[in-house]
Amino acid sequence: MIKIGIIGAGRIGRVHGEGVTYGVKDAQVKAIADPFMNEEIKQWANGLGIASCYTDYHQILEDPEIDAVMICSSTDTHADISIEAIKAGKHVFCEKPISQDLAKIKEVMEALKETKLKFQVGFNRRFDHNFKAVRNAVEAGQVGDVHLIRVTARDPQAPPIEYVRVSGGMFLDMTIHDFDMVCFLSGCKVKEVYAAGAALVNPDIAKEGDIDTAVITMKMENGAIAVIDNSRQAVYGYDQRAEVFGSKGQVAVANDTGSSAVLSTQDGVIGEKPLYFFLERYMDSFKREVSEFVQAIVDDTEVPVDIEAGLQPILIAIAAKKSLDENRPIQLTEVQF
Amino acid sequence: MIKIGIIGAGRIGRVHGEGVTYGVKDAQVKAIADPFMNEEIKQWANGLGIASCYTDYHQILEDPEIDAVMICSSTDTHADISIEAIKAGKHVFCEKPISQDLAKIKEVMEALKETKLKFQVGFNRRFDHNFKAVRNAVEAGQVGDVHLIRVTARDPQAPPIEYVRVSGGMFLDMTIHDFDMVCFLSGCKVKEVYAAGAALVNPDIAKEGDIDTAVITMKMENGAIAVIDNSRQAVYGYDQRAEVFGSKGQVAVANDTGSSAVLSTQDGVIGEKPLYFFLERYMDSFKREVSEFVQAIVDDTEVPVDIEAGLQPILIAIAAKKSLDENRPIQLTEVQF
Amino acid sequence: MIKIGIIGAGRIGRVHGEGVTYGVKDAQVKAIADPFMNEEIKQWANGLGIASCYTDYHQILEDPEIDAVMICSSTDTHADISIEAIKAGKHVFCEKPISQDLAKIKEVMEALKETKLKFQVGFNRRFDHNFKAVRNAVEAGQVGDVHLIRVTARDPQAPPIEYVRVSGGMFLDMTIHDFDMVCFLSGCKVKEVYAAGAALVNPDIAKEGDIDTAVITMKMENGAIAVIDNSRQAVYGYDQRAEVFGSKGQVAVANDTGSSAVLSTQDGVIGEKPLYFFLERYMDSFKREVSEFVQAIVDDTEVPVDIEAGLQPILIAIAAKKSLDENRPIQLTEVQF
Amino acid sequence: MIKIGIIGAGRIGRVHGEGVTYGVKDAQVKAIADPFMNEEIKQWANGLGIASCYTDYHQILEDPEIDAVMICSSTDTHADISIEAIKAGKHVFCEKPISQDLAKIKEVMEALKETKLKFQVGFNRRFDHNFKAVRNAVEAGQVGDVHLIRVTARDPQAPPIEYVRVSGGMFLDMTIHDFDMVCFLSGCKVKEVYAAGAALVNPDIAKEGDIDTAVITMKMENGAIAVIDNSRQAVYGYDQRAEVFGSKGQVAVANDTGSSAVLSTQDGVIGEKPLYFFLERYMDSFKREVSEFVQAIVDDTEVPVDIEAGLQPILIAIAAKKSLDENRPIQLTEVQF
Repeated sequence: MIKIGIIGAGRIGRVHGEGVTYGVKDAQVKAIADPFMNEEIKQWANGLGIASCYTDYHQILEDPEIDAVMICSSTDTHADISIEAIKAGKHVFCEKPISQDLAKIKEVMEALKETKLKFQVGFNRRFDHNFKAVRNAVEAGQVGDVHLIRVTARDPQAPPIEYVRVSGGMFLDMTIHDFDMVCFLSGCKVKEVYAAGAALVNPDIAKEGDIDTAVITMKMENGAIAVIDNSRQAVYGYDQRAEVFGSKGQVAVANDTGSSAVLSTQDGVIGEKPLYFFLERYMDSFKREVSEFVQAIVDDTEVPVDIEAGLQPILIAIAAKKSLDENRPIQLTEVQF
Repeated sequence: MIKIGIIGAGRIGRVHGEGVTYGVKDAQVKAIADPFMNEEIKQWANGLGIASCYTDYHQILEDPEIDAVMICSSTDTHADISIEAIKAGKHVFCEKPISQDLAKIKEVMEALKETKLKFQVGFNRRFDHNFKAVRNAVEAGQVGDVHLIRVTARDPQAPPIEYVRVSGGMFLDMTIHDFDMVCFLSGCKVKEVYAAGAALVNPDIAKEGDIDTAVITMKMENGAIAVIDNSRQAVYGYDQRAEVFGSKGQVAVANDTGSSAVLSTQDGVIGEKPLYFFLERYMDSFKREVSEFVQAIVDDTEVPVDIEAGLQPILIAIAAKKSLDENRPIQLTEVQF
Repeated sequence: MIKIGIIGAGRIGRVHGEGVTYGVKDAQVKAIADPFMNEEIKQWANGLGIASCYTDYHQILEDPEIDAVMICSSTDTHADISIEAIKAGKHVFCEKPISQDLAKIKEVMEALKETKLKFQVGFNRRFDHNFKAVRNAVEAGQVGDVHLIRVTARDPQAPPIEYVRVSGGMFLDMTIHDFDMVCFLSGCKVKEVYAAGAALVNPDIAKEGDIDTAVITMKMENGAIAVIDNSRQAVYGYDQRAEVFGSKGQVAVANDTGSSAVLSTQDGVIGEKPLYFFLERYMDSFKREVSEFVQAIVDDTEVPVDIEAGLQPILIAIAAKKSLDENRPIQLTEVQF
Repeated sequence: MIKIGIIGAGRIGRVHGEGVTYGVKDAQVKAIADPFMNEEIKQWANGLGIASCYTDYHQILEDPEIDAVMICSSTDTHADISIEAIKAGKHVFCEKPISQDLAKIKEVMEALKETKLKFQVGFNRRFDHNFKAVRNAVEAGQVGDVHLIRVTARDPQAPPIEYVRVSGGMFLDMTIHDFDMVCFLSGCKVKEVYAAGAALVNPDIAKEGDIDTAVITMKMENGAIAVIDNSRQAVYGYDQRAEVFGSKGQVAVANDTGSSAVLSTQDGVIGEKPLYFFLERYMDSFKREVSEFVQAIVDDTEVPVDIEAGLQPILIAIAAKKSLDENRPIQLTEVQF
């Protein structure tokens, strides 16, 4: 039984708390820490049978019974806590992105070297049933050589301006998952990026120097071309689709809905909207990514999303931002690491 | 070039007039006859290049240049005109049903004997792209031995009571096409029929001794079971679906729409309603059935829907009516022919 | 926290054991009993934190800490154990069917009278996301007055002959769920039944006096007509569909698949087969039915599927069998209760 | 009755010949001209009732009875013949593209000035049922302000190298239709283009300096972003899809198939491939574009695709080629006209 400490009791910290308790075999959450620990969190933790609630995450790192930590704190703390956890001998599951600062990621990589600790990055979509099915088809050669990769990702609602301000920009905050999907689905790295973007949903987003609508084209190392289209606001719900096209055919996935019910009336033939947002859409994937992390610890095998894999989308996001700023295609080699 | 005379210039007569002119190679309409011939019909005929417009259809039968007649007059005249046409040496395309009176059908069969004339019945759905695809799959063995046949047929709007009164009842008027589909799709004859029916759409239909909603179960000679569900009024449009299920799988067809456009909004994911009614849905099949009729004349081959095939759905309809009246399953052998 | 004892550690007993542990709030499994209790079951129970494993279910009934029992033993024992449990003051969740013997069901009803105990029958499909969506649309009036109800239910594989022999026949074993769906989806009771059936999948099933293929037509008390089609073997997987058609439109649900992936190749446009069988398809519904049972105990409200609701499908199944035997429609009043 | 002369009896010339004869009211083809006129073409023309077959198209221009010409000759002759036809006082339907040489297009525009002649360019997809439905939804405001436009266009088979050599490159030959769709669907002009392309299907195409796979991003004048993805070879057939996404939702169209038949077997749930190529997919649109052209002549109204509309996709194609060559986004203003 792997004992886990969760650092950060915000939305994603709680998702993982419930996921581990109800959906992950061979693991249990022993403690949770949050600087804003309160009665409500304690009750929630108690309901899940979590033994300890701390204000200071160091208490988790100091607990010799805890095998692994899940870092669910704010993005700017991910790298430093990762390093501390590694030094404390804990396996680390770190929410994405590792950091917006490439130097910090280097430090984490440095700290990991020579240890035998597992380090997994929280790119949960790799564990989603739909995207997994696309990957499986590509890997099995069912589409042949990959020529085109298309990812559509649109949120149901733009975040508040306060969030936009600290998010690191749409590419690092939202598109980062899609950059990961492009790599994961194709099994290939990105060589060059061109980004077209605009603030069409909310002009206040432009005032913060950010965008809410984008099309990003990527040339892959194997010659294929990938394209992502993003919007911060699809009024019909969370639009999450992908297709991979190649010499032998194409595989595509559509949105998930709450049921397959179709109502036919005088007004038309009406199906359900996509599942609302990432909590509805990706809940199972959150459990599966932790299951595989735990299994990698138990079996001492490689984690499915290592720090190298976690780094790629950040490099692409930085290149995309540079492309947007300079309105030209950017080689990934132009991003210093 | 096969020269055709059309008898009856009502809706279906005109459909065939336009179909032959614009969609059938090796054929042209030379004359059209209707007891209520008027200026409007003449103008329509002129626009299509039809040379002669008659009040009396005998003028068509007497024209030695005319090779074939299409009988599109009222149902009660089909059999008698068929016999006259056969005697005049014309090939006959007769709209369905041949007659509601089995004795009359026998007379037509008698008249046909010893002639080499072609006689085709207007079961147009056999020529529809969707139903043809089902038939092809069944014939190719893709579903294996047939176990279940399902046909859904729902009209967008109930006919006026005046029409219901002279229609011969829903089974002979509307379900007759579905009885034909059951035979066509499965390649098998019906042995026994059980019909459950009700007037749920319009209580006035019940006053005429008719129904507007039905489920009809048929045991087929090969052991398979078929089921049809009917309604005189589907507010979302003409609902025309079928499936055949067997030992190796199933083949199913859905409704056709005007376009594949899907609109996603806050209200849902909205597709188009089915094409409105039989003119929209089956226009191509009207052309194809006549094309094959003409081809059978040109090549002197068998017509695709001969008088035997045209008889079966009438027998089943009569059995279904008897089942409804007596609330018991009826053997097809109970229907005297 | 409601403490549950599970009686019967076969497939469905274990499904509920895991369901309660991982998916039901406010409940835990305290004990499980099975006459063939063994090490393997004990290990499984231990992994779930189930405190006690018994050979004799009376130990569960005698435990004053246990609030409710889930009866997952063989069908012929359901009624007797139900009565014992009621006498022991336990709430009862009884797997379907309560009994194949109507007199026994009467005894259970008798035992329940004057108690305030909850008694729920395991018709899990009512808790399935798809069927719930159909029911919700009907209840909300979105299809208007109900005219037609269609249920398709086809298993991926026929059961072994040994199972067929003791199953009580296809109607009581398999179609019983569909009879429940007809009632649930329409919100209406059945008045008359006509069943057409055959053994087309496996001739050995006919030797046991049973069938594997059927179409069952039902006249509902409100005038609507329902139809079920069944097969014991759909080679493409578990086919579970339904539609309700009425004066304002139709609502229909399709099969669920493991993913929405569609592969387009030279061979066609290929989607996934339906989820394989009831464990894959209905797992969530098993959790939800127990959640609602537990909630009804906690809140002292009515259970969602009471013994009256559990009785109806059995009456219909018996009528359907009689219809098959006598080849005539059977009034439900002909079934003595 | 508008009398039409067709110049060029190749594939598209014949498509129009049959389309006008069988599908366009108020019009007839009076003559057809082709430098390689032969017996086979004459027989075909005779079958359609076309009175004259010429080797020299000037005979068409000189016939005072001919109201309009359809220019279906090789691309490099479109502009010159257009000018001659205009001078001869004929209305012109010119196949796309008008010319690959912008100076020539200017000459045609010049010739048209001061005349009242109709000049329509053959962008047939605007008349396709699916794309029309998208346009209608956008025009009706159903998607709100347009933010993203996506067009997928993939041919089933790459053309022979000999064709590639004289095609003007993929953008002018194939993508030109998609550039037109971007403008048509959004109702907006293109401001800037970035093209990423590669020869992944056939390396010989690269040797000719051309590509077979591309993603083209366009910034629209209203701020929206459009993206096209192309391939010269989709082994599953002609892939023709589009979506427009905006502030109120999205409208999308899928591929058309020969039937809606879906076969479910042990191997999967298998639908038909898209209609094979443009002749199968767009046949109706060829008739409709000519119908509207004829109607514009009859009613003296504006043609639906005028020379200005025909010019835009050429400008975008030239910009896209420049973008590909220089690997940078190109302003449309950089293309001299």
